[in-house]
Amino acid sequence: MAATNKELWCDETYLGIFRHGYRVTKLAHAEQTPFQKLEIFDSDEYGRIMTLDGCLMTTDRDEFVYHEMIAHVPLFTHPRPRRVLVIGGGDGGTLREVMRHPSVELGLLVEIDERVVETSRQYLPKTSVGLSRPGVRVQCGDGVRFVRETSEKFDVILIDSTDPIGVATPLFGEDFYQQVHRVLSDDGIVVAQGESPFFTPDLQKKMLAILGKFFPIRHLYNMSNISYPGGLWSFLFASKKHCPLKGLDEKRVKASGLSFRYYTPALHRASFVLPQFMLDNCEGLLSPVTG
Amino acid sequence: MAATNKELWCDETYLGIFRHGYRVTKLAHAEQTPFQKLEIFDSDEYGRIMTLDGCLMTTDRDEFVYHEMIAHVPLFTHPRPRRVLVIGGGDGGTLREVMRHPSVELGLLVEIDERVVETSRQYLPKTSVGLSRPGVRVQCGDGVRFVRETSEKFDVILIDSTDPIGVATPLFGEDFYQQVHRVLSDDGIVVAQGESPFFTPDLQKKMLAILGKFFPIRHLYNMSNISYPGGLWSFLFASKKHCPLKGLDEKRVKASGLSFRYYTPALHRASFVLPQFMLDNCEGLLSPVTG
Repeated sequence: MAATNKELWCDETYLGIFRHGYRVTKLAHAEQTPFQKLEIFDSDEYGRIMTLDGCLMTTDRDEFVYHEMIAHVPLFTHPRPRRVLVIGGGDGGTLREVMRHPSVELGLLVEIDERVVETSRQYLPKTSVGLSRPGVRVQCGDGVRFVRETSEKFDVILIDSTDPIGVATPLFGEDFYQQVHRVLSDDGIVVAQGESPFFTPDLQKKMLAILGKFFPIRHLYNMSNISYPGGLWSFLFASKKHCPLKGLDEKRVKASGLSFRYYTPALHRASFVLPQFMLDNCEGLLSPVTG
Repeated sequence: MAATNKELWCDETYLGIFRHGYRVTKLAHAEQTPFQKLEIFDSDEYGRIMTLDGCLMTTDRDEFVYHEMIAHVPLFTHPRPRRVLVIGGGDGGTLREVMRHPSVELGLLVEIDERVVETSRQYLPKTSVGLSRPGVRVQCGDGVRFVRETSEKFDVILIDSTDPIGVATPLFGEDFYQQVHRVLSDDGIVVAQGESPFFTPDLQKKMLAILGKFFPIRHLYNMSNISYPGGLWSFLFASKKHCPLKGLDEKRVKASGLSFRYYTPALHRASFVLPQFMLDNCEGLLSPVTG
């Protein structure tokens, strides 16, 4: 946090070359958890803001973008998702969107940092409401260990992690995805937050190459919110069977009666249409976009 | 510019509530022109950066996004654009993309601030190369006055302006668009940079309402670059006749032999697919997206 002429700002420096800041009114909470530094800010323009190790995770104002796009793209691609695993995502926003799908019987959250869960319950009620939905199980522990040891199977796995530094690093590794593949049902889908196409193109290539070792269908899709650096932000999409475009049934979305603030079926499709520089960067690593 | 622990940063504060900064190596040029404060920064990560009144205008690294999207969407929608007017855009990047279209005979730039043109020629050679293409005419003067007084006609008009504060304010007004409509050929298209859907939704509504007074076809389309605040940035698209989706002929794009770093025909279409919050905000003001 920085004070400038008596103004308070929540600032993040990203990769040492970019920084962004949000005008805030006060630091509402700060603690060092066993895993990371956790801060909550109040602001007039963005509502509550949560940062982990100084990285902006979520704001009340724009959390809908990320949470709708990580959840509804795979959940409307899979024909009948019943068991969903979320790794990370301790604020509950991803689960909130997941549990809106009536076919979902279990939403299991495995979050390494219990303090993120507890602090979100206290300070981010609109987001953490997802943690209390019927069918939700919250398990605090290491997601890498969970997928290595579990004998459960899931239709959809969502990797709602922080950046690949510190505690989240193993979630960007090959061993982890080998286990994710094992734990997914025969027509399962995994979606992971996939970092910035502008700032970390090499990471996107590396992740697609890892996915290529296990999954026949691999894609990137994009969203844009206010609070992630670099304009565009990607999700990695990998699937054993279902294509995110052929698999999307607009009628089912309409029949669901769900309303959204960012997601639409048309935007679901459009989000897989990548700018040329991303196509060039990921040449040979992406499945063809058809349907 | 701010110095932090001996690091130099080029920082912009946007609307008093958001700020973003770019690590730079030096301030290469600074002057107060008759219209605005103009600064050029050198950086390792972004190449040269130009700011006007402290607002980030263009960087070598990501200028291709904005310039390709402001130019190629209308120029591949219009069946045979011959005469193109650019208002603002003194750095030359928009003209550079415009003049790649072989049908274009005239690219006329009307930029109010001659110092932007001259400084871009000196410091931004890869962008300002557009100012020297055969068929280009550069005229330094007031774009509002130009469209009011000219008897010339144009197939495409591109409003490549700064934000609607200070010198660019009249470019966001109804009188201006009445003249733009007059100056456009019978099947003409106008595209204008349309600000941030997250931060200035009221402005987008206002501009669409103005366009609705003159044009039967009105759209917003989006892009994302590194350096504009808020992730998404919009263009306003208005047309007397041609729909940006029905009008797009993929074969013509391919036959042109042009290569791009952001634009693709698929992305042209996808950029008109708006998130639900933009559809809600602009309800009743947008033409249907078909084709």
